[in-house]
Amino acid sequence: VTEPKTRKVISSALCLSAGLSAAKLLKANGLSPVVLEARDRVGGRTFTVRNKETKWVDLGGAYIGPTQNRILRLAKEYGIQTYKVNEQESLVHYVNVSSYPFRGSFPPMWNPIVLLDFNNLWRTMDEMGREIPREAPWRAPHAEEWDNMTMMELFEKICWTSTVRRFAKLFVNVNVTSEPHEVSALWFLWYVKQCGGTMRIFSTTNGGQERKFAGGSSQISECMARELGERVKLQSPVCRIDQSGDTVAVETLDKLTYTAKYVIVATPPALNLKMHFNPELPPLRNQLINRVPMGSVIKCMVYYKENFWRKKGYCGSMVIEEEGAPIGLTLDDTKPDGTVPCIMGFILARKCRKLLGLTKEERIVKIKTISNRIHVSTCVCQPVHYEEKNWCEEEYSGGCYTAYFPPGILTQFGKVLREPVGKLYFAGTETATEWSGYMEGAVQAGERAAREVLCAMNKIHQSQIWQTEPESMEVPARPFATSFWERNLPSVGGLFKLVGISTVLSVATAAGVVAYKKGLLSRS
Amino acid sequence: VTEPKTRKVISSALCLSAGLSAAKLLKANGLSPVVLEARDRVGGRTFTVRNKETKWVDLGGAYIGPTQNRILRLAKEYGIQTYKVNEQESLVHYVNVSSYPFRGSFPPMWNPIVLLDFNNLWRTMDEMGREIPREAPWRAPHAEEWDNMTMMELFEKICWTSTVRRFAKLFVNVNVTSEPHEVSALWFLWYVKQCGGTMRIFSTTNGGQERKFAGGSSQISECMARELGERVKLQSPVCRIDQSGDTVAVETLDKLTYTAKYVIVATPPALNLKMHFNPELPPLRNQLINRVPMGSVIKCMVYYKENFWRKKGYCGSMVIEEEGAPIGLTLDDTKPDGTVPCIMGFILARKCRKLLGLTKEERIVKIKTISNRIHVSTCVCQPVHYEEKNWCEEEYSGGCYTAYFPPGILTQFGKVLREPVGKLYFAGTETATEWSGYMEGAVQAGERAAREVLCAMNKIHQSQIWQTEPESMEVPARPFATSFWERNLPSVGGLFKLVGISTVLSVATAAGVVAYKKGLLSRS
Repeated sequence: VTEPKTRKVISSALCLSAGLSAAKLLKANGLSPVVLEARDRVGGRTFTVRNKETKWVDLGGAYIGPTQNRILRLAKEYGIQTYKVNEQESLVHYVNVSSYPFRGSFPPMWNPIVLLDFNNLWRTMDEMGREIPREAPWRAPHAEEWDNMTMMELFEKICWTSTVRRFAKLFVNVNVTSEPHEVSALWFLWYVKQCGGTMRIFSTTNGGQERKFAGGSSQISECMARELGERVKLQSPVCRIDQSGDTVAVETLDKLTYTAKYVIVATPPALNLKMHFNPELPPLRNQLINRVPMGSVIKCMVYYKENFWRKKGYCGSMVIEEEGAPIGLTLDDTKPDGTVPCIMGFILARKCRKLLGLTKEERIVKIKTISNRIHVSTCVCQPVHYEEKNWCEEEYSGGCYTAYFPPGILTQFGKVLREPVGKLYFAGTETATEWSGYMEGAVQAGERAAREVLCAMNKIHQSQIWQTEPESMEVPARPFATSFWERNLPSVGGLFKLVGISTVLSVATAAGVVAYKKGLLSRS
Repeated sequence: VTEPKTRKVISSALCLSAGLSAAKLLKANGLSPVVLEARDRVGGRTFTVRNKETKWVDLGGAYIGPTQNRILRLAKEYGIQTYKVNEQESLVHYVNVSSYPFRGSFPPMWNPIVLLDFNNLWRTMDEMGREIPREAPWRAPHAEEWDNMTMMELFEKICWTSTVRRFAKLFVNVNVTSEPHEVSALWFLWYVKQCGGTMRIFSTTNGGQERKFAGGSSQISECMARELGERVKLQSPVCRIDQSGDTVAVETLDKLTYTAKYVIVATPPALNLKMHFNPELPPLRNQLINRVPMGSVIKCMVYYKENFWRKKGYCGSMVIEEEGAPIGLTLDDTKPDGTVPCIMGFILARKCRKLLGLTKEERIVKIKTISNRIHVSTCVCQPVHYEEKNWCEEEYSGGCYTAYFPPGILTQFGKVLREPVGKLYFAGTETATEWSGYMEGAVQAGERAAREVLCAMNKIHQSQIWQTEPESMEVPARPFATSFWERNLPSVGGLFKLVGISTVLSVATAAGVVAYKKGLLSRS
């Protein structure tokens, strides 16, 4: 079966907005793209479900924030509003079986040694990040050294206290749905850096979790798909890409063959493996796609009759450090008008793997137990509804939020991540250099790949492929100011050194005084 | 297109002898298996090429040795002879730009501290291995601790000297074609253990490299394929497995559909990704297959007019420690009758990734340069022929020799490695528990999976699935005796402790004598 030959480009998209935004840009430039989507829906790792209990709920990627200007531009174009995730009241840090309310991005640390250690951790990670080029982390001055160690090894070097090490583990879990011992230090430092640093990536207000799209994040993909109309083919998983002829032949599982001049593969790198290539992919890419697994996460939404946490003075954000707790981080997911009270939580990495064997009902019980303990629930608030999505079970995602690089891979294979192969170009949020792993990264990647095709067709100059994005007027970014103390407080090691030197000095002085008094020092 | 329904079993094999040996055993039990092979040849990661320059050459898996009784049994059945790899003369250890001839499995170390360190490394690895169950390494007492560190981290803990650490790195490179910082310590210790320990895995004589098959290793697969006749379908990559009906529908890329009661998937785990599954694989398996990459290796054969190394007293085995040298290990690959003089060498892991961008000619030059330096070639022996195979470029292998487990994966995902999914059973050498990663493991896995199917059909009892193999009469295993000194010499750390204690003791004794002499000790 051969479809009428499409004139220019086929974008084979298993990955959210990347494929669609590539196609949108190509169409705007007068080309005739076709989008082949494996699933029976668009949106990829964003997935908005509508039902009467929730009105709508984002089971996948949902959060946007300042500096994510491309996705904000698309949303604005389609008239999709954003709203702020509730952070009016106190956040809660649950640790050592107690709840500690706090304000700001990170929980405060009261022990002075822990405080120094904590401050030094963020400062060090951001400083190391500054050495890493966002477009080529493998060229960082210490690339090989940092890539050959896991983030756990790096934490063991940086952190002096178990309190800070434990929190650092949660920080990795929350940001990349994997474990510190699984990921390359170079890769994780790069990841945090290309999101704008430790504060930007982890913050709600002024950070990556500041806002959501009213009505759900899939709307962006849905609007783009509507615009593209018949060009988007659902339930069309690509199983073969043949470049042996003049044009590229792309075959779907339902045995349709599309031909194109260029193809943009907009899947996570690992899902290139779902396709059989002729000729074979070059050796480095052939091996890369086997080396970048997707993280593990179950996203859970628990619905209540009333918004009891706000009444108690809590905004709904919880940072939970307890091995027995399924959830690591929560955010208020109540609708912007205050209806449908809801707490969203992530089951992350090792906990995800542990709990995905349970039934949905067993997971709800576990979540309720910890939730009640944290809120010291005298109110006996019973959930009225529950939604969840286990992304590990999705064949056409492989996991969520994004791919991670185990130790040693980024320096050896990173450079082919978005290197074209003949007439194949690569998009997908994993190939982005700003907010890779996020919706923003998907748009950056999709549009960049589209411009690579335009450049190959001599429609634009090579210098136009990579474009910066003007800042969103509606969602401006404020810088994160660091205080004098944050910049200048010593690390624990530094403190010990200081104390050591001053001890030596004071002991020497004291000894001198004693010696002087005993007349042992000659005063020649 | 629907083929006449095959009666019982389809074995979808992209992986050497596993699929074929499964089919062979099923056929012997009266079933009607079909083997779907992605390539245009059988053999998978074994690949014997015949030409006039080499007579025959194994570009893939080639070596067998004592304790590999299943592959030896198959070879015997087909009348395929084995012969010993030449180790009559001295081996060479090339390190610090010098060649040191030696005898035995491991090069000797002359510095006494290095010797203690070296001895302690092998002893410790074998001791740790003894704690690891070969059929369930994730149940080892220290499974999580060891899995969460890389082999590099473990070497940093065990080894005191850079000499030993450097050799340890080569040991990982040679055995699993990956880097110490890439692999889980638990996984690597398990791998060495299930091959019989450090001596068995690394030795030529009495070890994994003792022999080769006269005429090439692919003959085994070829003989099995001949026996199976029309049941083996070449050039039939499977792209879809549908278990939604009563039987399993298996679709190949050329649009043929086979139906079967059971399916054995005999590919490396990662190549499950080449297939689209309905229903989707369970979440842990869906994620596992993205987490176990294949190693990186180029196998090189350099042919000479005469066997000049034997004349100089060298057997042709070289262990090469030099960052600039492409090859890490060589073995004599001359034919058993002394014709076609040849040296075989491996370009491993990081070096493979570095050199695969070169042309074949550039690689030859690099190999010649180091080869001449090692043999102090006054003879100016020019190669007369060269063969190589870069396994990283094979779409249907993903790499060679085998899959490795990065840190954290074995304990979290290992248990589903060969867990059946509905009517799918899993073979492939990666699922074996003895010589996994080798031809032997492929046969063990294939036959075990076939017996799982027989058990599911109530033809055998569950207790019969796993079977031990009687020892080969022709290739018996001798135990590796450890000497009193090897067992009892201290580690470097132990030595320092000893020295510390005896220093304390001698100082104390000396002080006592002094005190006694000075009359400070009361002799009440």
